[in-house]
Amino acid sequence: MEAAATLVIKLGYRGGDFAGFAEQPGQRTVAGELRRALETYLRRPCELTCAGRTDAGVHALAQHVSVPVTQDELSIAGRRLERSLSAIVPDDISIRGLYCATPEFSARFDATSRSYRYRISCGNARPVLGWGHVWWLWGAPSLDVEAMDAAAQCLVGEHDFRSFCKVSSAEAILADGRSTSRELTHLGVSRVCEAGEDLVVLDVTGNAFLHNMVRAITGTLVEVGRGHRSGAWVAEALAACNRAAAGPTAPACGLTFERVTYPEGSLVPWA
Amino acid sequence: MEAAATLVIKLGYRGGDFAGFAEQPGQRTVAGELRRALETYLRRPCELTCAGRTDAGVHALAQHVSVPVTQDELSIAGRRLERSLSAIVPDDISIRGLYCATPEFSARFDATSRSYRYRISCGNARPVLGWGHVWWLWGAPSLDVEAMDAAAQCLVGEHDFRSFCKVSSAEAILADGRSTSRELTHLGVSRVCEAGEDLVVLDVTGNAFLHNMVRAITGTLVEVGRGHRSGAWVAEALAACNRAAAGPTAPACGLTFERVTYPEGSLVPWA
Repeated sequence: MEAAATLVIKLGYRGGDFAGFAEQPGQRTVAGELRRALETYLRRPCELTCAGRTDAGVHALAQHVSVPVTQDELSIAGRRLERSLSAIVPDDISIRGLYCATPEFSARFDATSRSYRYRISCGNARPVLGWGHVWWLWGAPSLDVEAMDAAAQCLVGEHDFRSFCKVSSAEAILADGRSTSRELTHLGVSRVCEAGEDLVVLDVTGNAFLHNMVRAITGTLVEVGRGHRSGAWVAEALAACNRAAAGPTAPACGLTFERVTYPEGSLVPWA
Repeated sequence: MEAAATLVIKLGYRGGDFAGFAEQPGQRTVAGELRRALETYLRRPCELTCAGRTDAGVHALAQHVSVPVTQDELSIAGRRLERSLSAIVPDDISIRGLYCATPEFSARFDATSRSYRYRISCGNARPVLGWGHVWWLWGAPSLDVEAMDAAAQCLVGEHDFRSFCKVSSAEAILADGRSTSRELTHLGVSRVCEAGEDLVVLDVTGNAFLHNMVRAITGTLVEVGRGHRSGAWVAEALAACNRAAAGPTAPACGLTFERVTYPEGSLVPWA
């Protein structure tokens, strides 16, 4: 197939019933469901590239997926395509926008930043409307948000984040001669109220992320927020370049992939 | 049983899997689950009174339920009672606070105001994290929120809200010699962003509500927001005292019972 352009789909999903974004044989995955919808509509095999693979249980508000399209397919009306895909995908996937890009565009390689939010609910009361997309930190009456936010700042900038990467994944990256350095441009911990729920949220933006990185950072900062560890320990954990030096990996359910940015002008709304 | 005091339970729930608050034979209800938890813990029959019965599918963040308790039961530690009830009730019920009141207190009759929020998501994109507690107004690209809010103001104050009450319920009330007048102290329509979702929300506070009243008001104001009806039509619908004169009943899933108030000092935290 000769690609005349690239179709870029902005999509959201609730991750609870998916074995992650990436396709895996015999598993229900976001990519599997989306590919099936596209292939049903376009009547040909499709190859999907995403901005960031999310793990089982992780949600997304603005995942971006790119698919090369032919000259003929370029004439499909956006409104029709959007409605059709929406109707084919299951209820836990939301088609949130369609864009057109050059044939060379890749949702993965052209992304300049990715942002995640991790939502935590403290206290003895089970979350109500936030159930399923917040981490219920049962029994922790509160978190020292100011201490967490202060401790988080040592992670901003370019660092080797090996201490916050799933061990098998870091080993594969290093064996491959690639780097476990990543750059965070923002990391903040704050309180918000969402849908009647008082939450502690961790907002992070970076150029790219290692496997489990946001969840490991969250689990580490929660140790500080609960008073089990000092803020200085976070810097030590980072410097150690050893997963065992940092805190536990927070559960997938609290994590949402919130935003991706691309160079200005690279995406135009699909007519 | 001689009541020494009243236990008041503040509770939240996701209404999707309940046949409403009130017990019904053979159905899964909030009152049924809560009563079973209380009876398991207190080892005696319990009678529950709630601030406001919610219909099947309606959610609550701060429903209040009162239960008379004995002198002996007054000595149960609040922390223990809260943890035990939380552990017994199902995942879609959240125990959010325990309070003590006089033996005469009634969660229903002592309530001085009740507040509800109705959440609407417009456009072609399926809600993501708000799924289950917002009404997805599919195909409506947007709502004229200013027109809805302006039209809503004629409903504030004391009025006969028969046009916004389920017909069979209004007939029963009138046959009983009671009134279908209620007083709204606040009604506002606005835009909010919650958990990454752009929503139109209707917030309403009143002394009490008729059956389906908030949902009928919402359905009526949405007709104005979509431009199908003028603002003046809402006042005409109110004056008609006829359910057929107002708009359709909005679906239960978008409605959440958010707040109840009681006279100051009537509830003290359960020690």
